[in-house]
Amino acid sequence: MKIDKILLDHGSGGKMSHSLIADIMLPAFDNTILSQLNDGAILDMNGTRLAFSTDTYTVDPIFFPGGNIGDLAVNGTVNDVAMCGGDPLYLSVGLVMEEGFSVDELKKIVDQMRIAADKAGVMIVTGDTKVVPHGAIDKIFINTSGIGVIPENVNVSAGLAQPGDKIILSGTIADHGMTILTQREGLTFDSPVKSDSAPLNHMVKGMFEAGSKIHVLRDPTRGGVGTALNEIAEASNVGIRIHETAIPVRPEVAAICELLGFDPLYVANEGKLLAFVGPDQAEQVLDAVKEDEFGKDACVIGEVVADTPGKVFMHTRVGGTRMVDTLTGEQLPRIC
Amino acid sequence: MKIDKILLDHGSGGKMSHSLIADIMLPAFDNTILSQLNDGAILDMNGTRLAFSTDTYTVDPIFFPGGNIGDLAVNGTVNDVAMCGGDPLYLSVGLVMEEGFSVDELKKIVDQMRIAADKAGVMIVTGDTKVVPHGAIDKIFINTSGIGVIPENVNVSAGLAQPGDKIILSGTIADHGMTILTQREGLTFDSPVKSDSAPLNHMVKGMFEAGSKIHVLRDPTRGGVGTALNEIAEASNVGIRIHETAIPVRPEVAAICELLGFDPLYVANEGKLLAFVGPDQAEQVLDAVKEDEFGKDACVIGEVVADTPGKVFMHTRVGGTRMVDTLTGEQLPRIC
Repeated sequence: MKIDKILLDHGSGGKMSHSLIADIMLPAFDNTILSQLNDGAILDMNGTRLAFSTDTYTVDPIFFPGGNIGDLAVNGTVNDVAMCGGDPLYLSVGLVMEEGFSVDELKKIVDQMRIAADKAGVMIVTGDTKVVPHGAIDKIFINTSGIGVIPENVNVSAGLAQPGDKIILSGTIADHGMTILTQREGLTFDSPVKSDSAPLNHMVKGMFEAGSKIHVLRDPTRGGVGTALNEIAEASNVGIRIHETAIPVRPEVAAICELLGFDPLYVANEGKLLAFVGPDQAEQVLDAVKEDEFGKDACVIGEVVADTPGKVFMHTRVGGTRMVDTLTGEQLPRIC
Repeated sequence: MKIDKILLDHGSGGKMSHSLIADIMLPAFDNTILSQLNDGAILDMNGTRLAFSTDTYTVDPIFFPGGNIGDLAVNGTVNDVAMCGGDPLYLSVGLVMEEGFSVDELKKIVDQMRIAADKAGVMIVTGDTKVVPHGAIDKIFINTSGIGVIPENVNVSAGLAQPGDKIILSGTIADHGMTILTQREGLTFDSPVKSDSAPLNHMVKGMFEAGSKIHVLRDPTRGGVGTALNEIAEASNVGIRIHETAIPVRPEVAAICELLGFDPLYVANEGKLLAFVGPDQAEQVLDAVKEDEFGKDACVIGEVVADTPGKVFMHTRVGGTRMVDTLTGEQLPRIC
C-alpha cells in the first residue's frame, strides 16, 4: 500500500518510523555516518572524536509530574550524546513558541533547562527563538542539539553487541510514557506516577571507569525497551534473550499498563539506559550503574546469543518464550 | 509595561527579540560564550576551535520562488557557521511534521536539502523526526544545527569592528523577505521576485584567502541589514555610517517595498553577508566576494567611525543624514 500522507505512526519509533527513515531520509542523505543509526553521529574533528546529536521535544502536556519540556529537552540530548560514548559538553537550544504563549511559563521552562544543564554539567552556548502565529504550533516545541568528546578508550555502537554480552537495564521501565499518557487523558490514580527524566552522563562515566567492555549503550525512549533491543539485534546481527521477571516495573505503573492495555516493554523512558557488556565485566559495570543516583534499581535483564540473529525473545513470567517484535506504529498517542 | 504573553514581535529580530533574550535567556543560561551573541558559539575542543550554530525554520509558504524550507534550513545554518569564521562540515536535522502532511512534499523537501548540502559541501550526519497531531503544527518545521572548524588565522566576532573598517555587502537586499511576503499574501507582479537563499561558505573561504583583516561577518537575515548593523555597532561600541545610494536593491523589489510601505533595510535576506574589513584590504576582499557566484553585486556600503558609538547613520539619497534605528518588532509578518 502506497502511503501518501504522514501518519502519527511515522513518529512512533516503530516499524513505520523505520520505513520513513529507510525510504526517504537515508537514500537522500546517504553517508556512512548517518547510516549507522546510532542516537547521534560520531565525527572525527582533527583527531578528536565528537558525538553530535539532535532531538526536537513536542511533549504534551508541557508540565508533568517529574519534569517538563525544558528539562526533558536538556536531559534527552545529554543522554543521546552519552549513548554515543560521548561526554556531553555543549548544547544548542531552538525554541519555537506560538503567539500568546505565557511569558511566566517560558521563564519556568528556561529555568528548568538551566537547572538540568547544571546538573548534567553542560553549557547552553547558542540558541534561536522563533515566534509563529497563534495556532501554527501547539504552545512550545524545543530542539536541542548536543556535542560531546568521546574518550579514546570508548567505542560503542548499536552494531557492536557480541554473543555472550550481558544486558544491563538501569532501572524501572515505562514511568515516563505512562505519566504523560495519564496526564494527557486526565486519569488520576491513588498512587501517582512520575516521569523518570534524568541525565545519564555521570552514570556512563562511572561505567567506563568500572569496565572497558561496554559494547552498546542505548536509552530506550520512543518505542521503549522492546524497540531498542530489536534495533540492536538487527544492527549487530545477533539474537537477544531477556527474562520478563528480571525487568523492573513499578507496581503502580504496571497496574496502569494492565488497566489501559499497554505493554510496558514499548513505553517510553527518559532516564534509563541499556548497556551491552562483556560477561566478565558485567558485574562490575552493574555495580557502577547502581552507585549512580539514577541507577539504584539496575539489573541484568538478559544476554546476547549467536542464534536467531536479528530477533529478540523473552522468557515470560509464566514459563513460556515469546518473540518481542518491533511494533508497527504507536502503542500510545504522542508522548515525547 | 509588563508583557505576560509572547507576541509575534518577540520573534522579529528587533528590539523585542533582544529584550526577550536579554531578560529571560541570558540570565538563565549565563555564560561567556552565549553572551557574545554571535550567529553561533565558538568552542575550544581539545585545541580545535569549532563553530556551533542552530536555527529553526518555520517559513510559510514552505515552497516559494527561489527555494523552499529545505534548502533554506541547510543554507541558513551553513551561513551561520560561516559567519563565525567556521568552515561548515556537519549538520543535524530535526523535522517536526503534522499528521496528514504530504509524503510527496516531504520527499521534495528532503531532496532539496540534499542538493543544498552537496552544494555547500556539508554532510547531514544525524537527525530526528517527530510527528504531531494534525493542527499541532503548521505543516512542517525544520531545525538544523551545524558544526564547522575555524581555521587558525580566522577571528571574527560582532564585537571586533574597528574605526576605519570598510563595510562590504555581498549583493542586493530584501529579496527573500519580499518574496515570502508577496507569496503569502497572494500578490502577483509583472516582474516576479525570488528568494536569494544561497550558501555563503565558499565565498567566506575565498575572502579569507584574499585578506586576513576581516573583523566581523554577519548574514542579515531576520531584521535585515538595519538590525545587523545596529547589533554590530553596539557590540563593538563604534559608530557606523552607510550610504543609501550604495546599497543595491533590485528595482522590482524596491517597487514592491515602496508599494507596501516596507523599508528594505529591515527586510530579511537569506544569501547575503556583511563583512567589516580593515581599509587597506577592503578592495581585495571585495574582489574575492565578487568572484563568488552569489557575490556579483557586492559593494562597499559604508564605514566604521569612532564617534556616536552604538549608532548607525545613513547618508540618504536626497542628501540628508538619518539615524537607522533597530525596529521594535515586526515590519512584516513571519517570513523566515
